[in-house]
Amino acid sequence: MAKKEKDIDYKTYLQLPTLLGAQKPISAAHDEMLFVIVHQTYELWFKQVLFEVARVQKLFARKRVADSDLRIISEALARVDAILKHLVRQVDLLETMTPLDFLDFRHVFRSASGFQSMQFRALEISLGLREEDRVSYDGKAYTSYLSKEDQKTIGRLEKGDSLFEQVDKWLARTPFVSMGKFDFWRAYGRAVTAMLKGDRKAAAADKTLTQAARQMTFVRIDNVQKQFDALFDGSAHKKSLWRLSNKAVKAALFIMLYLDQSVLQAPFKILGALMDIDETMTLWRYRHAQMVQRMLGMKMGSGGSSGHDYLVATTEKNRVFKDFFALSTFMIPRSALPQLPAEVKKKMGFRYGSDGE
Amino acid sequence: MAKKEKDIDYKTYLQLPTLLGAQKPISAAHDEMLFVIVHQTYELWFKQVLFEVARVQKLFARKRVADSDLRIISEALARVDAILKHLVRQVDLLETMTPLDFLDFRHVFRSASGFQSMQFRALEISLGLREEDRVSYDGKAYTSYLSKEDQKTIGRLEKGDSLFEQVDKWLARTPFVSMGKFDFWRAYGRAVTAMLKGDRKAAAADKTLTQAARQMTFVRIDNVQKQFDALFDGSAHKKSLWRLSNKAVKAALFIMLYLDQSVLQAPFKILGALMDIDETMTLWRYRHAQMVQRMLGMKMGSGGSSGHDYLVATTEKNRVFKDFFALSTFMIPRSALPQLPAEVKKKMGFRYGSDGE
Amino acid sequence: MAKKEKDIDYKTYLQLPTLLGAQKPISAAHDEMLFVIVHQTYELWFKQVLFEVARVQKLFARKRVADSDLRIISEALARVDAILKHLVRQVDLLETMTPLDFLDFRHVFRSASGFQSMQFRALEISLGLREEDRVSYDGKAYTSYLSKEDQKTIGRLEKGDSLFEQVDKWLARTPFVSMGKFDFWRAYGRAVTAMLKGDRKAAAADKTLTQAARQMTFVRIDNVQKQFDALFDGSAHKKSLWRLSNKAVKAALFIMLYLDQSVLQAPFKILGALMDIDETMTLWRYRHAQMVQRMLGMKMGSGGSSGHDYLVATTEKNRVFKDFFALSTFMIPRSALPQLPAEVKKKMGFRYGSDGE
Amino acid sequence: MAKKEKDIDYKTYLQLPTLLGAQKPISAAHDEMLFVIVHQTYELWFKQVLFEVARVQKLFARKRVADSDLRIISEALARVDAILKHLVRQVDLLETMTPLDFLDFRHVFRSASGFQSMQFRALEISLGLREEDRVSYDGKAYTSYLSKEDQKTIGRLEKGDSLFEQVDKWLARTPFVSMGKFDFWRAYGRAVTAMLKGDRKAAAADKTLTQAARQMTFVRIDNVQKQFDALFDGSAHKKSLWRLSNKAVKAALFIMLYLDQSVLQAPFKILGALMDIDETMTLWRYRHAQMVQRMLGMKMGSGGSSGHDYLVATTEKNRVFKDFFALSTFMIPRSALPQLPAEVKKKMGFRYGSDGE
Repeated sequence: MAKKEKDIDYKTYLQLPTLLGAQKPISAAHDEMLFVIVHQTYELWFKQVLFEVARVQKLFARKRVADSDLRIISEALARVDAILKHLVRQVDLLETMTPLDFLDFRHVFRSASGFQSMQFRALEISLGLREEDRVSYDGKAYTSYLSKEDQKTIGRLEKGDSLFEQVDKWLARTPFVSMGKFDFWRAYGRAVTAMLKGDRKAAAADKTLTQAARQMTFVRIDNVQKQFDALFDGSAHKKSLWRLSNKAVKAALFIMLYLDQSVLQAPFKILGALMDIDETMTLWRYRHAQMVQRMLGMKMGSGGSSGHDYLVATTEKNRVFKDFFALSTFMIPRSALPQLPAEVKKKMGFRYGSDGE
Repeated sequence: MAKKEKDIDYKTYLQLPTLLGAQKPISAAHDEMLFVIVHQTYELWFKQVLFEVARVQKLFARKRVADSDLRIISEALARVDAILKHLVRQVDLLETMTPLDFLDFRHVFRSASGFQSMQFRALEISLGLREEDRVSYDGKAYTSYLSKEDQKTIGRLEKGDSLFEQVDKWLARTPFVSMGKFDFWRAYGRAVTAMLKGDRKAAAADKTLTQAARQMTFVRIDNVQKQFDALFDGSAHKKSLWRLSNKAVKAALFIMLYLDQSVLQAPFKILGALMDIDETMTLWRYRHAQMVQRMLGMKMGSGGSSGHDYLVATTEKNRVFKDFFALSTFMIPRSALPQLPAEVKKKMGFRYGSDGE
Repeated sequence: MAKKEKDIDYKTYLQLPTLLGAQKPISAAHDEMLFVIVHQTYELWFKQVLFEVARVQKLFARKRVADSDLRIISEALARVDAILKHLVRQVDLLETMTPLDFLDFRHVFRSASGFQSMQFRALEISLGLREEDRVSYDGKAYTSYLSKEDQKTIGRLEKGDSLFEQVDKWLARTPFVSMGKFDFWRAYGRAVTAMLKGDRKAAAADKTLTQAARQMTFVRIDNVQKQFDALFDGSAHKKSLWRLSNKAVKAALFIMLYLDQSVLQAPFKILGALMDIDETMTLWRYRHAQMVQRMLGMKMGSGGSSGHDYLVATTEKNRVFKDFFALSTFMIPRSALPQLPAEVKKKMGFRYGSDGE
Repeated sequence: MAKKEKDIDYKTYLQLPTLLGAQKPISAAHDEMLFVIVHQTYELWFKQVLFEVARVQKLFARKRVADSDLRIISEALARVDAILKHLVRQVDLLETMTPLDFLDFRHVFRSASGFQSMQFRALEISLGLREEDRVSYDGKAYTSYLSKEDQKTIGRLEKGDSLFEQVDKWLARTPFVSMGKFDFWRAYGRAVTAMLKGDRKAAAADKTLTQAARQMTFVRIDNVQKQFDALFDGSAHKKSLWRLSNKAVKAALFIMLYLDQSVLQAPFKILGALMDIDETMTLWRYRHAQMVQRMLGMKMGSGGSSGHDYLVATTEKNRVFKDFFALSTFMIPRSALPQLPAEVKKKMGFRYGSDGE
């Protein structure tokens, strides 16, 4: 009814009677309310994060991502990161509770556990965390702690393309990596070889180095050469050292090296936002592990492994966008970088004609 | 049923189906969800803040505040401040929305407004904000924007003792301000007079000062003397320059000056936490005003006064614990402070006998 | 000497002996060290901020700002804002000091004051704060508190183009606002008129409104119309309600309304960063004012006006990029916005041909 | 000279010409300045942190820590934590630099490395980090990367009592753990046994449990019993599972369990602050490791181990106050806690007579 819509007030709009009636602490311990509200606000924010990720996934699902949508994508991802950073800080609020106060109501949980947050699992899966990226808990998959129904939901979620996979495909389609006579990969290979040759020569000529130091420098340069070789000859991909496809690796490296070209500015923002999210998710796991240790000491675990140890292990293993960090290994300084041909540069500029003219 | 209690899981414990079903954006604009969730998490945290304030008020409502409760009080207030600081930072999340995106759904609010947050009003009133401390909006009391029912609730809230009033009474009861032969107020008056006399003498003797600079120094010292006179002779209280009672002012000053005495450490923490809360509430108003200006420019207001101007005005006026800040005016350096007699010091120590022995 | 360069270590590189030998507290009070280091880190960060602003100003000083430099500009401004936000939070560290501890060394300052921070003044002036934008202190210009030499430096700084002026000129040059047959200003005027007409009609037809409410709605719409009229007929500019030139206002509004067009994404980022900086500078002033009040109460001032009151007054007055906030007043919802002609859209896309095809 | 002291201005007081002249970037890369200033502000804050820790250590070095000094100690430690948290956030500022921009000047460092920050080493050692607590880097002690002179300084620092050792001794002296007829340890042992017996009984009677679940519960209870046994019979100490002395463990547990007793409120604050510092140092290491990975990928290391892996390993190993976290393992709920006898309670109260009367 029209009338009703017009009369909407703050309380109704925000569903406050429902929202503020949904706190059901079980014990009489004062701090259980804090525990409930901390976790409820987490879940509300997870909903928002999933809402943003879904928007991004919808745009990436198109055959072609419109240039005018790139801002929306990078801003949505930036918002996701801002929210996650907010949630990391929120751990401080839970730590205003003493371990003794926590014990006053800890018994109410029984088998209930943050493990069972379906939204958090959905987030991990949407971003692209795979079963094999996970640390197992007491030798069992995390899904074994879930209800049948939730296991089904997980199964369904895992079927769709994750954000990681979408980004992989989007990167693989980048047109500039090879354009006319310009082949980035070949040019880059030559530049790397020249740079390392120069490094070797400089080390050989450097009289301030001791024999041992010179030798170490050579070893270091050889190692770098081997890493690059494995990248260039595709053997690193054959050995599955990368999760990104070979084409996506090239494109991502290209974007990170020529980030100031007009057409690459937005993609660079997007890659940066994905790395931010990866870092913040990881930080969230870490702060969570610290907090659990503070509250429970070595209590939670059994058979030697504590809850804390498990949680710390997840911080480094349960990561999705690691490959983008690994790319830094393969960057070379601007001074050694191949120049882009003028025609390539021009193609990467705006139509109204500002750059390269 | 016992069985059911045992089987509680994460989802049920946190009432997630209810909680995550309570977002009802009206428009199809993507960012309305953010708007809803930002405000819902605000309201959840307000509930927690009110819960903590209620705990503190209950402890202060006793005829005698137990020493062993002082830690609980100061930690509860510190938690309130930590939550409010978190909410200030949360404004950043709302600002990830562009003004244009806000316009896509702004029309849905009609008369709905944050003005109508009853929990926020309850917080202000519980802390001790009075009708006369408020900036009026368009010449009208804020209650005129509320429903009849909400006006009644406000009326009820205003009847009880606020935290400010409770703290005032608690301070007024502090036993140490006058103990045996020791009268803090008299001793302090003498110390102030001696200090200012010294300052005048030093200025008169200081040959590096120009005549004008010396004159200004004298004027400044006279002003300080006058402020102190008004405090000591009670005329400042007669003119209602203070909201705190005369006795409470004395006790608060005593606590702030002898903060290291064992028995004063906890009360000092409490006063500090109240000042923190006052500062953070004010900062929250300020960030809120900035955000409104960013989203709406000069739109909201009518008749010349914008929403932004109104909100900025509230930051300095709508304050509860201002008096504690004013006390800094009346502090004198430790070197000029009257020494506490040994017997007073001893009485302020622990029974097991560690200090002063 | 080559040898020496090679042997550089952490300590030498960072000039640690110099840096860590430059703290010269005058009193024996413990907390004076904190005071010194808080202010020294402020000044180091101001140096960095000025370094970034200088980079941006150099790029804006060119006859034509290259598209490939826009990322550098917006990232430099974002970094400035990130640093300033860090400095706002740093106020918390100073507040770990009690007012009593501050009194232990406050006397060492004499006439020394943060007022004399030349780097902060240089920052204000580089951004574009003019003498007339400033609140005067005790009726005198802030420069009257500076040494002759510093006054000269200020004079020199004020001669150059500020960032505000550079941005104004850059905006005024934006090519898309009027392109071929498309005249944004005219199209926008028509859209606004149509929208307000629709609003009036809706209000007249809305039977749920009381007569008084309907009347108020009409008044509000009329006010909006007048604001727009003054903008469109240029009278707002004649009355100097804007600091931005008329052309720059148009361009900025255009950018804020069509922010997703590829060519406008970077400019929009830049405008956003300028607003962020303005907000954060203002927040910094506000937190500073709060901190001074906490430490000094009403001490600092003379003649009735306290230091706190002065500082609070500066937060709203001493602002540079206010106009960009005011622009929100003149935005209309996307649904009412004029569609960009296909040819204009195409011109705003990339050369390689992704949008509009 | 008196004259000179009077004329001190802001610039001279803060030694700004020296301070702002101490940035000596070697390359022409724009972002090297940021790198320098980030690290210089780190070092300035480390100086402040060491200054606070030295104050605390001086107070702890006394034969008897005065009750009136406990506030100073806990506030100094809280300030240390606040500064460290600020430094953790500061990592974000360094991350405004792209890896490519870092490569533009990375070559200038040669052997220079944050490894060589003597202040950071001094902080670790003052807090109580021992050689054996450290992860070795490439199989070598970190000191092997230092100059002879710095190695000597480290040697000297390691001789003194660390904060950890001082706190251990201070805790071991706590008088209340055994007082008259009250022996906390014995009473606590009885309470634990009773609690676990109750838990076993409840599990046996709980018909909602499957046989397997019941069995797991028994195993869990047995494990808890074993942990307590090892604590009570001293075998955990014989096996060096604790770094704290047996007496200190008892006292710390006592403080954490009876935290609201007036005399324990300040000690509890101190233990909490030490845990905060431990957590934040660890978080700092973690953020640092993330940042290095982002900038360098897998570059830094050699022989398979990357810089990132080393840094992550330090976060969990290089910890000083772990034992305080482990104590949470041995807490039991308030409801199962032995009641303190009235006379003990009274002794822990204030002399002026407020509690227990």
